[in-house]
Formats: sequence, C-alpha cells, structure tokens
Amino acid sequence: MNATDLRLYHAAGSPNSRRVRIYLAEKGISMPMIPVDLGAKEQFSDAYAAVNPRRVVPTLVLGDGTSIGEVPAIWRYLEEANPSPPLLGGDPREKALIQMWERRMELEGFAAVMETVRNRAEGLKGRAISGPHGYEQIPALVERGKQRVADFHVDLEALLATRKFVASERFSVADITALVTIDFATKALEMGIPLENAATRQWYDKVSARPSMAA
Amino acid sequence: MNATDLRLYHAAGSPNSRRVRIYLAEKGISMPMIPVDLGAKEQFSDAYAAVNPRRVVPTLVLGDGTSIGEVPAIWRYLEEANPSPPLLGGDPREKALIQMWERRMELEGFAAVMETVRNRAEGLKGRAISGPHGYEQIPALVERGKQRVADFHVDLEALLATRKFVASERFSVADITALVTIDFATKALEMGIPLENAATRQWYDKVSARPSMAA
Repeated sequence: MNATDLRLYHAAGSPNSRRVRIYLAEKGISMPMIPVDLGAKEQFSDAYAAVNPRRVVPTLVLGDGTSIGEVPAIWRYLEEANPSPPLLGGDPREKALIQMWERRMELEGFAAVMETVRNRAEGLKGRAISGPHGYEQIPALVERGKQRVADFHVDLEALLATRKFVASERFSVADITALVTIDFATKALEMGIPLENAATRQWYDKVSARPSMAA
Repeated sequence: MNATDLRLYHAAGSPNSRRVRIYLAEKGISMPMIPVDLGAKEQFSDAYAAVNPRRVVPTLVLGDGTSIGEVPAIWRYLEEANPSPPLLGGDPREKALIQMWERRMELEGFAAVMETVRNRAEGLKGRAISGPHGYEQIPALVERGKQRVADFHVDLEALLATRKFVASERFSVADITALVTIDFATKALEMGIPLENAATRQWYDKVSARPSMAA
C-alpha cells in the first residue's frame, strides 16, 4: 500500500525510527520518508520543531497536517488504517498482551540501553534525556544501565524458553522492540545476546532473517 | 456494567492503581477488587508473583486466568470490551493523539515523580526501580527528578493554555495520567501546580470535580 497522504520524518541511525521502519516493511506500507540529520542537529531546527515540538524522531505527519510522535502512537494510527496482518494483536486479550510485553521490552530493555548511552556519550553532555529540556549526565546511571541491560537479557531468555515469540505465538511489535533493543545494545554497548542464551539466539536468528529487518 | 469474570489486584495508595480505578469509575465498570498490601510487602509473596511476575500493582486477571499488567495494556483490554464512552479515542487520529499525549504525561510527569520518590525514600533503599530486580538508589536522580517535575508543570501549562483537555477537546486517559501525576507530586514531593499556572489550575478544578476522581 502506498500511503501518499502520510509522511514519516526519521533518521537512519535512530533506533526509534527503525522500530517504525520495520513495522512499515512488515505491513508493506510505503510513504514519503523525510530524513532528519541528527549529526547536524537538524532536529533542533525551527523547521523541525514545528513538526515535533519534542524535537525527536520519528514523527508521522497525516494528510491534514496532524503530527503523531511516540512510536507506539504511530503504530496505533497505522494499525487502525491497515489491520492486516495484525502486529498489535487480533482479539482484545492478544491486543492487551502485546501492549504489555512491548512496553516491558521498551521500559526494561530499550530504555535501559538508551539511558546508558545518553549518560556516557561525550557528544550528549547536557542532553542526558531527549526532548526539549537539557539535563546533565549522571555517571552512576552508566553502571546501573549496564546492569539493567544484563538483567534484560536474563529475563528475555527465561521468557523465550517458554514461547516462540515475545508476546504470543506469532510475530508482533513486541518482537520488533526486542530485536531493535538487542541490535542497539550490541552496537552501542557491546552487550549482545550472551553466548549461553540459546532460546534468545534461536529467536533472534529467526526474527532477524525477516526481510523487514533491513529497514 | 458488572464484570464478574474479571478481577483487579490493586493497592489503595498506589498511583498506578488509581489510574485504573478512575478509568473504571468513568466507564461505570465494577469488578471484584483485591487489595495487595504494599506496606506488608505482599507484592513480593509467592502468591502474588504467580499473578504478576513483575511484582507490581495493578494487575487485571481475565476469566481464563490470563494476567494483564501495565496500566495502558489494562486500559486497552477494558476499552475493547467497553468502547463507550471512548477514553482511548474514537477515530484513528484521535486514538493516536491520545496515546501520544498520555505517554508524554507518563514519561515526562508520572515517571519523573516516581523516580524522585524511589531514589530518596529510606524504605526503598535497594529498590530504586520497581520490578523483580533490586537497584541501588542514586541520590543525583532526586535533584534531577525535581527539575523534571518542574519542567513538566511548565510544559503542561503551555499545553492547557491552548485546549480544554490534555489530548483533545474531550476527557481521555491523558487527563487521568496528568491528574494522578499532579496529585502524586503534591503529596509525595510538595510540588503541586505552581500558583501562576492559571490554565492548569482551571483544568485541574474541572477534572478533579468528576465523581470518578474519588476512586
């Protein structure tokens, strides 16, 4: 489906942007994609602040000019318009379980990696939290963040030993966030899947082979 | 509606439980409510860990025994079964906007209050993050957390100067999270609405007068 009335502002290296790009590829939705150059701090430009006052990517802009920020909100809009195949769940029970597990992957995994990265990168001094306000880095968060990422790997392994996918017996946005988290942890922190985590490795090999993952 | 096939585990003093209780009152849904005594650390009991392995409240348990944790996931289940009046939005655009704004209220407001409280309370040493893993408190997060709560008040005032409710022109879960955040900040941190924030005060007076807010 070619959604010419929508457009997505994104950045190639942004893990949050990747969560949306994978979703679009899984659904077979194409739309105009507008790159935002984070290296050149384009997200802080007046032009981009008019698109997303939180100055973060990604942002989905609708035909009437409405801006939708926040990855789960962007997914929700797209899923309503393109229900098949369901990536947010079919019946009410599955919808709730996917939302629960996706959120845990984000809060316990993705956010822990992000916090570790933002509190130690030289280039992010004064920008420890994304958004319109500046916050100083807190070095103690780097060590705690690494511990949280290690705990995330332990918990994910226990989970995937019991089922095929993160939230249920089929692929969903919970798998997207878990996979993006692992690739982000591997690249930014060298904290990939521990060698002994066999269930996670099996899941990762299967999920990362999906064509959407190149998005 | 009396949903006798469901039950909610909750705690009277838990702000996250209150987010669900207000939602139920707004919808006119009643169900068996099972108190979890956080003061007696009942959430760490084996019995409760079987209900929610994350050892947090609230948890919604379905008739087939499925446990749904995480407030937005609980709302999603209940909204699917009880769409009227819509508190998660009507059309796709409104659903996405409410999810976006509710999430911002949580991440920028609610989570900032929670982080400040958990990193300074004597009784939460070693428990700076809720869930199954113990993390030491980081004193620097207390000061940063207070700054984040102050910034939340500034941003909310700017938002409410432009519209009647947080996410749109009608009451939604974004208002529930914003109100619970303000009451939590007032009680736990003495950081209530600044006197000069006229738009927030007007919104608060209107929203807090709803009968659901006593829940």
